[in-house]
Formats: sequence, C-alpha cells, structure tokens
Amino acid sequence: MKKILLIGAGRSSYSLIQYLLNCAMREDWELIVGDMNLVLAQEKVKNHPKGKAIQFDINQAEIADKEIAEAEVVISLLPPFLHSKVAQACLKFHKHLITASYVSPEIKAMNSEAKSKGLLFLNEIGLDPGIDHLSAMQIIDRLKAEEAKISAFRSYTGGLVAPEYDNNPWHYKFTWNPRNVVLAGQGTAKYIINGQYKYVPYHRLFSHLEQVSITGHGEFEGYPNRDSLTYREVYGIAHIPTLLRGTLRSKGFCQSWNVFVQLGMTDDSYVIENSENMTYREFTNSFLQYSKTYLVEEKLAMLLGVTPNHELIKKIEWLGLLGHERIGLPQATPAQILQHLLEKKWKLEADDKDMIVMQHIFEYETLQGEKKKLFSSLVVKGENKQETAMAKTVGLPLGIATKLLLHGKISLRGVLIPVQAEIYVPVLEELAQLGIQFSEEYQ
Amino acid sequence: MKKILLIGAGRSSYSLIQYLLNCAMREDWELIVGDMNLVLAQEKVKNHPKGKAIQFDINQAEIADKEIAEAEVVISLLPPFLHSKVAQACLKFHKHLITASYVSPEIKAMNSEAKSKGLLFLNEIGLDPGIDHLSAMQIIDRLKAEEAKISAFRSYTGGLVAPEYDNNPWHYKFTWNPRNVVLAGQGTAKYIINGQYKYVPYHRLFSHLEQVSITGHGEFEGYPNRDSLTYREVYGIAHIPTLLRGTLRSKGFCQSWNVFVQLGMTDDSYVIENSENMTYREFTNSFLQYSKTYLVEEKLAMLLGVTPNHELIKKIEWLGLLGHERIGLPQATPAQILQHLLEKKWKLEADDKDMIVMQHIFEYETLQGEKKKLFSSLVVKGENKQETAMAKTVGLPLGIATKLLLHGKISLRGVLIPVQAEIYVPVLEELAQLGIQFSEEYQ
Repeated sequence: MKKILLIGAGRSSYSLIQYLLNCAMREDWELIVGDMNLVLAQEKVKNHPKGKAIQFDINQAEIADKEIAEAEVVISLLPPFLHSKVAQACLKFHKHLITASYVSPEIKAMNSEAKSKGLLFLNEIGLDPGIDHLSAMQIIDRLKAEEAKISAFRSYTGGLVAPEYDNNPWHYKFTWNPRNVVLAGQGTAKYIINGQYKYVPYHRLFSHLEQVSITGHGEFEGYPNRDSLTYREVYGIAHIPTLLRGTLRSKGFCQSWNVFVQLGMTDDSYVIENSENMTYREFTNSFLQYSKTYLVEEKLAMLLGVTPNHELIKKIEWLGLLGHERIGLPQATPAQILQHLLEKKWKLEADDKDMIVMQHIFEYETLQGEKKKLFSSLVVKGENKQETAMAKTVGLPLGIATKLLLHGKISLRGVLIPVQAEIYVPVLEELAQLGIQFSEEYQ
Repeated sequence: MKKILLIGAGRSSYSLIQYLLNCAMREDWELIVGDMNLVLAQEKVKNHPKGKAIQFDINQAEIADKEIAEAEVVISLLPPFLHSKVAQACLKFHKHLITASYVSPEIKAMNSEAKSKGLLFLNEIGLDPGIDHLSAMQIIDRLKAEEAKISAFRSYTGGLVAPEYDNNPWHYKFTWNPRNVVLAGQGTAKYIINGQYKYVPYHRLFSHLEQVSITGHGEFEGYPNRDSLTYREVYGIAHIPTLLRGTLRSKGFCQSWNVFVQLGMTDDSYVIENSENMTYREFTNSFLQYSKTYLVEEKLAMLLGVTPNHELIKKIEWLGLLGHERIGLPQATPAQILQHLLEKKWKLEADDKDMIVMQHIFEYETLQGEKKKLFSSLVVKGENKQETAMAKTVGLPLGIATKLLLHGKISLRGVLIPVQAEIYVPVLEELAQLGIQFSEEYQ
C-alpha cells in the first residue's frame, strides 16, 4: 500500500483531501493527513476507510521523520517558510514533494540532489501559482508549434466573492488569507510593455489599472503583480515585448483600497502607540495632518481630493473607520488593525460562495501574417462553504499531480514548476472533467 | 604624552583635526589620524609636530589593536556599522570612545561593561545628532528650573548651500553625504501634536511641511524626521503634548523632491534593467504609464497634476532627467541613478560655501501662568572648502568633548549621549567662543 502524507489541513485542503480519498478508494493507497491541530485533520478525513488523521509538527523531528519515511510522496500545504524543513526530510528519506508555493531559493538549491536521488520536487501547482502556469504554457507551446510570433502576454487572476453574494459597497469579501490581501503589492511592480520596462511603486499601484472584461461575467480591473519580468525566462518567451501579470478585482475596488495605501494603513513595519485603547476614528486621524478646525472626514476628503460626501468617504465610513468603536488590539501595526476590522466587515458568510476569475490575453501574429488576439478565461464558483472555488482550484491540481506521479505518468525529476506538457496536458484535461475549464475567444 | 586616536579622515574631519592639533600644541598630546586611505589622513595632518597620519583598517585587527591600546581616547568617524568593532576594541583595552553617530543597539548593550571599566562611550555629539541635543537640553533644563510647563517642542536642522552661492533652480547643493540625502525619510515619520500621534508614510512626507522662519535668514520649510517620539524619554519630557523633529530645506525644495518620491526614483531596493545603456529620459519614462500618444513630459505633468510648462517640470528638465544622455551605470538601483545625476548637478563648487540652520521652538507656560514661545536659532556658514559649516558643526563638539574628557572635566561613564549639563554647558560655551552660537527670541 502506498502512503500519501499531506501536511496542513487548513482551509485550502478540503477539495484536495476529498479528491485523494476518492483516488485511494480505487487504488491501494492510504492518505495520512497531518496538522498541528489534530481536530482540523480529523474534520476533513472523518472516518474514511483509506484516510488517517494525525497530529503533525515539522519541528518535532522524530515523529515528522517517521511519517515522512513511511510515505511515498509528501504534499505540503504548510506556510511557505516551513517548506524547506519538509524538503530536507524528503531528501533524507528519498521522498517526492509537491507544494502549491513559490520555489524559494533554499528549495531551488536542492535541485541537483533531488535529481540525483530520482525525486520530483514539484512546486507552484495550485491556482496562482499553478493553473496560471499550466494554462499559459499550453497556449504558448501551441502558438510556438504553429510558428506564431507572440508579441504580448497579459495574465490576471483574482479571488472574489461570487456576484450573487456580493452585498457590500466594497464588492469584496475575504475568500483567502486576509493578511496576504492586506499586504498585497508592497514593493515595486515590474513589467514590460512594447519593450519598455515599467516600475510602479506601491503608493501608485492601485491607481495603475487595466480594464479586463470576461464574457458573461462583466468588467474587472487589474493591478500589476510584483514581478512579471522573471516570467519571460520561466515561460520560455525571453524576448516578448509585453508581459504583465496582475491581480483582478471588481470595478472600483482598487480606487477605494488606494485610500488605505495613501493613508499608510497597510504598513506592517511599526506599532501604533496605544492601539488597544484608541478608537477607529482616532486611528484614521493619526494618518491625517493635525487640525483644530477640520473634522476627520473633511481632512480625509481633502487628502483624497474629493468632497466629504463622496462615495470613497462613504465606503470608509461603512467600514467603521470614522466611528468611535475601540480597536482593542494591543501593540498592533496599522496593517494588523486594518485586517482586524476588515475581517469583521468582509467576512464570507456561511451561505456565501466565492469565485475565481483568471484571464490570459495573448497578442500574436500567425505564420500567415495575421494579427490575432486570444482571450483564454476561467471562471470557477464555489459549491459550498468547504468546497470553495479557492479550495478546488488550489487543491485539485495538487491532487491530480500526485495521482499522476504515483501512476508513474510523470518522469521529470528535480525541483520544478509545472511548465512542461508532460504535466500540464493531463492535469488540464482532468481539471476540465472536474469543471475547471478555460474558454477561448479570438478577436 | 597622551595619545588621541582619530579614525576616519573624510570630509567631516577637517575642523576636528585642526582643533585637536591646536590643543595638542598646548598640551602634552599627540593626535594620531588613521584612515584606510593614508593620503586622506596625511592631507589633513600635514607635517604637524603633534600629529601623525597612519593607514588604519579596523578589520586588520593586529594593527588596529596596537593603535587603540596605545591611545587614551578613540574618536571614530567611521561609517556607523563599523563602530561596534571599534567599541569592542575599546572595551578590550580600556579606552574611552567618542562618536557623532546614533547609539546602535550593539553599542547600547556595552553600557554596563563600559561603566564597570570606568569608560565613557559618548555618542551623538556632532551636529544632528549632537548640537541639537546640547542646545535643546540646556533650554529644557532651564525651563524646568524655572518651573515652566513645556507644552510643545519643535526642532529643525538643515544643511544647505549658503544663499550667496545658491545659483540653481533647486536651491540645493550637496554639502553632506549624497546617498543619505537621496534616501532621507524612507520609512514612516512619527510625531505627536497636542496629544495626537501622527504617522506620515514616506510617499506623503514631502508634502507634509511646516514653515520655519529664521530672523535675518528668511523662510524655510521642514519635513518631519523618522521618529520624534523616542525623544520624549531621551529629553526627559515624557508627557509633552507636542514633539516634532524635522529637516529644514529651502522653500519649494520639498515639493520638487516629492516628484522623485512620487515617481519611485529614490528606491534603493531593486536594480533597473539595462541601466547602463538607458538614457535619463528612458529612466524617467520607466516610472510612467505606457502611452503611444503622450510625451514623457506630458505624462509626468499629468501624474503631478500640473501643466507641462510648470516650474516642477522645468526643474526636472534642468537636471537632465528628460534628456537623451546615457546613464552609463551598470546594475544600478533607481536611487543610485538619481544620486549619480544629482552629484553632477548639485555639486558644491570649490568657491561655494555651505550653511547650517537649526531652530528649536518651545511653547510653555511660566510659573506665573504666562504663555510664551521661544525660538532658539543657529546659523553657521562655511569658511572655505575645508572648513565647511558642516565640518565645523560636526567636528568641534567632538573635539571639545575630547578635550574636556582628557582634562578630567567629564565624570560621567558608560554609553551616553550628551544630554547632561556636565557636558552641554562647557561644550556650548566653547562653541559660542568659536562662533557657533544660538540666538534666542521670544514671542
């Protein structure tokens, strides 16, 4: 019997665990689900005949080593900074490793050892990174095979609330790690457009937008991700004149989010004095110039260059940032205070469903000299509280890749991300059968 | 014969070396000036009978240890990150240490050892930090002695070109480390005003100004320094409702500098692609949204919300940032490219003189209930290329403190900054004799 060890039973694990338990029923496999919090693992495995929930802590080396030594393949859903410990143990016990996280320099450095030991360390095979790589590379390889000349590639992904459940003025709810949403985009965004490098500092990121339209789903807006330039090498399109990867949001969201950025409320680098006893109104005021005459809302309106009854101010008010409620968080950074408030206001309710949208836009010239524009779009909606669009799109590619590996269908070895046909063809095929399917339009 | 070891013979050392050589003539002292670059040390010591220039590298432990072991007191003008090595050696050989740099956590941690060995590690005794501490504390202690209630303290310092030599549209030349000027203010500025904490993110710092007027010298503008809050403890005014420390610039400078901040040109965290072969115009354009129709100057004007013939655009043009000259710097960050250009355009010419301006503004209520405002101002101009205002105001407090220490006039021991009367009284007294004197006005 082959054992699969899955580490981390948090919110993204549901669909993955169900998929692997279903596989295990048909095969001679057992799925061991380990988490620091045993209850989380038990809730997902339930009493499945081919599943087992265990308490697992990568820092308790003895137990961790024993479990890893017994597995055939390890899937890690741990926070990225813990992956290298898992990977070290996988090298030690000659086990394959699969993650949905970005390849860190430490993991990258394990490439030759993994290869020489005949191991696959497959990373970035979730949603983004993951499905974006799979689907982009399928089109890039197809266009290359047709000898088309690709001049532009733009790719956007967003995790949103499904429009049927969008009932707040921000048109946003947390469908994923709130901390990542609050800190998103810090640093400088880099991309290339018609051969010109572009650098967008964080304080201008949310006013540096492109409109994205998805047939049947309306208009969205996209802001550039941190570093699009490295993907020229990754995708084998080193000389493409235009490459931009970005994040999708509902229309109007970025202009409103920009208020937080302009104020400085997304800063996570210092602690606000007396944050526990301060009101949200005082918190907002602490980012505005001192005045004896103007109200907080008036100063905010002046900073933003709008009138005090403008929609932007109303959205800030709706969140409670102009109200007199006490924050109650001791020793908190601005970002922590903002997250604390938003988690209450942007909560995905029990009956709410989430939605994933992704769009690749390619511009190219065919061998015959015809100029074309290709839109490849994916929209996935959640089924229920556990089978969210996010859990499905992150978990299923991981699950399918694990199955393919155990079936001997993946011969690649070493530290990789899924940009090869050997991986993307079967994974995309099975994703389509599971309802995760791109639709293409030409223009 | 007592030996003084001075490490670092860069631009701030001239006045200090002359001061100490003059002292040495009257006393049985010898001044050893050490620098990595022997020529720098020789140029300043010349063949003075009481001076000696040596090649000194704190990382060559054997020579460094020998020189430190022979000295009575060590003055370090090395870059701050090297001070802790010097301090370690001073502890080892039981030597006093004097610097003009901020106390680092490593140096702070040496307090009890220094104290128990009877050593003084006196830091922050240059200009800013330095003269600002001395002069502020003298007034604070005086007001406390008068039982006045201090309600506000604002303090600004700036290193500028003297107005007689101000002949460029930016009204600024480098009189100090250009890199520090380019990177100044990054992070979040923190201060308190009428009991309200204020946090100013970097992208709003240069539009968050106070006007400062110095009698006989006109109007300046000040932006808040990184952290004013810690000075409440340092100055013994923990409960003061208003405390702000800032940097002074000529009027209009901050609005123009803000253009670089808005563009992202002061970022030192990443490298611009192909920086060597790019023109300055292309560099500027890389921070502006792509456009087929608008010129770089038009896009810049739109970003700034001004017309393309506005003075702000003209200042940018004057620097050459819209021109076709090649940058010629390989693998450079935006901040490095900007510094490279500004060093050419904002060079202090051989005959130019610099100027230091400092102003403390106190608001208080006397014991008799009278509300007063006290302005204490310092203006120092450079004498010549070597005896700049900066070299004098940084070097002389260091020199005077060294003399006082060798004369047994300072009994304080441990890691300190000069906030005690034992230090500020005699240092300010001698500074005044040397022409560095504050003038007071009440309002």
